[in-house]
Amino acid sequence: APSIINRAFSKEQFWDGRAASLEEQAKGPLTNPVEMGMPSHDAVVKKISAIKGYREWFKRVFGNDVNIDDLAKAIATFERTVVSGGSRMDRFTFGDKSALTEAEKRGFELFEGKARCVQCHNGFNFTDEQYHNIGVGWDTGKVDLGRYTVTKRREHIGAFKTPSLREITTTDPYMHNGSIETLEEVIEFYNRGGVGNPFLDIEMKRPSASLEEMLDALDKIEGLVKLESNEGATLNLTRRDKADLLAFLKALDGKGWKKIEEPESFPK
Amino acid sequence: APSIINRAFSKEQFWDGRAASLEEQAKGPLTNPVEMGMPSHDAVVKKISAIKGYREWFKRVFGNDVNIDDLAKAIATFERTVVSGGSRMDRFTFGDKSALTEAEKRGFELFEGKARCVQCHNGFNFTDEQYHNIGVGWDTGKVDLGRYTVTKRREHIGAFKTPSLREITTTDPYMHNGSIETLEEVIEFYNRGGVGNPFLDIEMKRPSASLEEMLDALDKIEGLVKLESNEGATLNLTRRDKADLLAFLKALDGKGWKKIEEPESFPK
Repeated sequence: APSIINRAFSKEQFWDGRAASLEEQAKGPLTNPVEMGMPSHDAVVKKISAIKGYREWFKRVFGNDVNIDDLAKAIATFERTVVSGGSRMDRFTFGDKSALTEAEKRGFELFEGKARCVQCHNGFNFTDEQYHNIGVGWDTGKVDLGRYTVTKRREHIGAFKTPSLREITTTDPYMHNGSIETLEEVIEFYNRGGVGNPFLDIEMKRPSASLEEMLDALDKIEGLVKLESNEGATLNLTRRDKADLLAFLKALDGKGWKKIEEPESFPK
Repeated sequence: APSIINRAFSKEQFWDGRAASLEEQAKGPLTNPVEMGMPSHDAVVKKISAIKGYREWFKRVFGNDVNIDDLAKAIATFERTVVSGGSRMDRFTFGDKSALTEAEKRGFELFEGKARCVQCHNGFNFTDEQYHNIGVGWDTGKVDLGRYTVTKRREHIGAFKTPSLREITTTDPYMHNGSIETLEEVIEFYNRGGVGNPFLDIEMKRPSASLEEMLDALDKIEGLVKLESNEGATLNLTRRDKADLLAFLKALDGKGWKKIEEPESFPK
């Protein structure tokens, strides 16, 4: 599942963006068979209602009995408190040039340049909140359709929402399906250009694509421009590049969200 | 897994046709983790070699010790004996007009006409041995790439080999992923036009597509012509149509292959 960190700053939720709010998103995992697996929302309400403490809180906060909409509101409201900021990168951005080490600064240059990370991971939250196909799963014979399931648009086949990179060291495993365990492997994945497929995002290649190639690709498909394979999409990062990039990614970890701790007790 | 019935009459094996012979195919299931799950072909050879009776048979038949190629030859040779023929439909085809009941004859007409089955299930073995996308899985968010994994051709995304319909009553569950339990449900699946997706085969619609639609579709993609959705692909079969079609399908069961019985004993 996508991390909830800084999701307060985004409208579309889930990897495929099928929920328009955190309230809508919060209802999903309750009955998802691979998450909480409850048979229905009614069953969830019944279970929570059986706990006196929760009944009382719902009365005090919402003025009524436990119900699924208020329950989702409560979860979404909590989620909005899970924020990340105050990272060394933030301090660097706001003018403290000593906040990053030399290796981290080189990593930041790679992030914005040769490694092209910033093509999608841009803005204060290191995400464009858009959907991109980077080829995860196309070498396995089984593919998640991703954003296509919502839009039914051909160019969204296998495209998933760009995640924020904040607190990236603590949100493993990576990729929409959790198929990559470490950040080192993620960097290798991008270094070899992702996995080629007919919907591979042009963002994986743009800097080296000629104008002719771009126009040719535009001719083929309306909407986003996609590449048939990952040929030419490799990044040619050196060993030091990879180490610098990793160092930079670690400088995106902040402190705010870490204050969130499990309550000592729950309503009974 | 696809049925082995009458596979002697086909070159490309597996649902995606990735094996060029039954010998090549026979090596697959041994180490497939969801089939026999052996760690390697060496481990298979070692296991079979440990049985004296097999060692003797390999010496007598192949003139050498157990090895993976001869083992595959033996399995493939057995598979070629699993044939189906002599069905009532065969007798009908060869002139015995009383071999089918009236309902079955109506079913045959539907098969070749309104229900369009014959668009892909044609020839003596009721298969064109080609690859088609009928949309299985496109309503679940997860898709098997099928023939695409072999050819890397866009128009083969989600396309699987047309299976023979001989002995169809005994080869359930149906579809490449076994997602449909009964023939009744298979007929319903086709009746609603499969599941729409950008690669849905034009064979799902051809009879009702206008020349203009066909040319338009041809403009869009080189190679096979595909449809964006399953709109207009529904068959409008009546309740009697469905019953007749089912009756016909059952008349494809033969007798030849049923003589194959498990041996009373195996080499020891």
